[in-house]
Amino acid sequence: MTGVRIAGVGMTPFDSHPDQTGRELFADASDEAIDDADVPRADVDALFYGNFMGAFAEGQNHQGPLMADAAGLRVPATRFESACTSSGVAVREAVSKVRGGEADVMLVGGMERMTNNSTSFVMNALATAGDELYEGRSGMTFPGAYALMATAYFAEHGATREDLAHVAVKNHAHALENDLAQFQREIDVEDVLEAPLVADPVGVYDASPITDGASAAVLVSEEYAREHDLDAPVAITGTGQGTDGLALQDRASLTRTPAAERAAEEAYADASIGPADVDLAEVHDCFTIAEVLALESLGLYEQGTAYRAARDGETAADGDLPVNLSGGLKAKGHPVGATGAAQIVELTKLLRGDHVNSPAVSDATTAVTHNAGGTVASATVHVLEVVT
Amino acid sequence: MTGVRIAGVGMTPFDSHPDQTGRELFADASDEAIDDADVPRADVDALFYGNFMGAFAEGQNHQGPLMADAAGLRVPATRFESACTSSGVAVREAVSKVRGGEADVMLVGGMERMTNNSTSFVMNALATAGDELYEGRSGMTFPGAYALMATAYFAEHGATREDLAHVAVKNHAHALENDLAQFQREIDVEDVLEAPLVADPVGVYDASPITDGASAAVLVSEEYAREHDLDAPVAITGTGQGTDGLALQDRASLTRTPAAERAAEEAYADASIGPADVDLAEVHDCFTIAEVLALESLGLYEQGTAYRAARDGETAADGDLPVNLSGGLKAKGHPVGATGAAQIVELTKLLRGDHVNSPAVSDATTAVTHNAGGTVASATVHVLEVVT
Repeated sequence: MTGVRIAGVGMTPFDSHPDQTGRELFADASDEAIDDADVPRADVDALFYGNFMGAFAEGQNHQGPLMADAAGLRVPATRFESACTSSGVAVREAVSKVRGGEADVMLVGGMERMTNNSTSFVMNALATAGDELYEGRSGMTFPGAYALMATAYFAEHGATREDLAHVAVKNHAHALENDLAQFQREIDVEDVLEAPLVADPVGVYDASPITDGASAAVLVSEEYAREHDLDAPVAITGTGQGTDGLALQDRASLTRTPAAERAAEEAYADASIGPADVDLAEVHDCFTIAEVLALESLGLYEQGTAYRAARDGETAADGDLPVNLSGGLKAKGHPVGATGAAQIVELTKLLRGDHVNSPAVSDATTAVTHNAGGTVASATVHVLEVVT
Repeated sequence: MTGVRIAGVGMTPFDSHPDQTGRELFADASDEAIDDADVPRADVDALFYGNFMGAFAEGQNHQGPLMADAAGLRVPATRFESACTSSGVAVREAVSKVRGGEADVMLVGGMERMTNNSTSFVMNALATAGDELYEGRSGMTFPGAYALMATAYFAEHGATREDLAHVAVKNHAHALENDLAQFQREIDVEDVLEAPLVADPVGVYDASPITDGASAAVLVSEEYAREHDLDAPVAITGTGQGTDGLALQDRASLTRTPAAERAAEEAYADASIGPADVDLAEVHDCFTIAEVLALESLGLYEQGTAYRAARDGETAADGDLPVNLSGGLKAKGHPVGATGAAQIVELTKLLRGDHVNSPAVSDATTAVTHNAGGTVASATVHVLEVVT
């Protein structure tokens, strides 16, 4: 089985992009990734692409061929949809494709356009990531679902809104100098606690924003990287995926996310590492409580303890285990279909040393992504390592 | 690289199913496939699943986890969307997964629910498989797009509406005894020619219907089949995928489908066969002209000649090269996301000898599927062979 290297990465600023269509956004991200990889387009074997709500947002399904065109490629192109982990699964299957020897060079990425519609429209579109019969029809939206999870977590473990506020404050701080982030603005705990509630106990600052953006990466086999003398020091050494019941009501616990636990176990085993080896992580903080649950599912914190991580500074840039140095979904933004691949983009830059926050992790060699769909009914975890 | 066997198949009747949700339909198909395979659920490694318009039809994206649940599985589950070849790409990637050694047992399938909405709603949803900016906004629907292709074909090759009518007549004849087909009713050339026009020269009987249904197959590695002494005489020996520009206006020719040509070339090379080895085919006759273009793209007929195939009886059950013995999309029905995997289901039964039309092809050992998305902006081709 061949190893998989990240030869190049690219992403648009995550922001509101009223003047760009989805295909234009993805063209920007993929152009940058292909240029960064310094791989001829003729060598790209296929495109694996994630998008969630294009059917609603732009009346556009069947985006595979469209985005191959946008990237200047005429190759087999496949769209993956797995809610907020749409490009996470695309990355996973692209890794498989290279490992299996069926491709030497894969373009992988994702795109979402969200701000061209009203917030209520987007909330309804997002709700299609939950169980329409048992959640959607009872009016359950995602802030509501994560509010239930936070409430249960508070009851079980004694955490508070203030603990969660530190997650938002930290992630905003991390994004301050990240030009690609939607919010480059400091906030404090008071801002979070005093902001309007969306669904008690989830306030505005506990939630990731609505965002437009695209992300892309070029994955190559180790052999291809060597033969073409590519500068590709970061490898994807582990991949994992887990699935849970779609509806929250079917879960044994509201405070555990077994799909992510399974994905993490598989990814660690695949990379032959354990949680203790992880130097930094990009996790799916669609809501502040989600970052807490992510850290526990990844085995980076014991069950019921990760709510202290941000408060105690452990997951800050200068902490022992920096988490979401990009700003996370919270501050970097969350264009749903682009998020999973964007985690790969940010970690690659952080590990290569060309990210604005790289100095905080100059010794780091091992990083993980945690990308979740719905209320973690789907999850993908990837292990990235610097290879020398 | 391990070989891939089809251990079991299942599908619902293709029809209007007003009393069943999408998850219920897929449960029926996957139960049948798993029972047919005689594989314990605990051995299934993952679900690859195709669906096209669930976001519109049932307000339901993120169907991977939902359908894993419906199938009684708690395994990584991924939805693929590539318009009408959504489950075609799912099959292709499931084959990759087994070949790469990452899975021994894959459940693959698809589902579409369409009749629970109005015809105009469904036409608009289907239009999202085309280019929204350059086709959708100018009012282009799929009957219109294929009408342009048929008109160009008539002009280039001298074919007539009557030639195409024979395709519909043949496929209806094939479906007469197929209990799973939506239409088990004989029609004649006059019926086709006198039917109302949908988009000149495409009449009602030139078009596949709106359908609900689900399909599923269990794919296993050769080693797994041997170790577990499975009765799995049919192998998938070749897979191919091609992509073209999404909008018809970007094509060099309206009468060729290079995405399917590429998919066929790749699949034949993969299986080490050529068109001359093909004994029967299930092709994507969403419109009668589409069957003609399919036969030419597969290299089964020279460019500009396949319009005579049905008229001359060559592709009938008693012809040299039976095509769409299931009834095809035209008579069997076309629940978009289920169609690609349903072609696998029908061919498996035809080759195993347990299809109502098996007697017509009792000597057949090699078959191909041709599954197309949009105006063949996406295409997958699979080669199935009886292995002894």
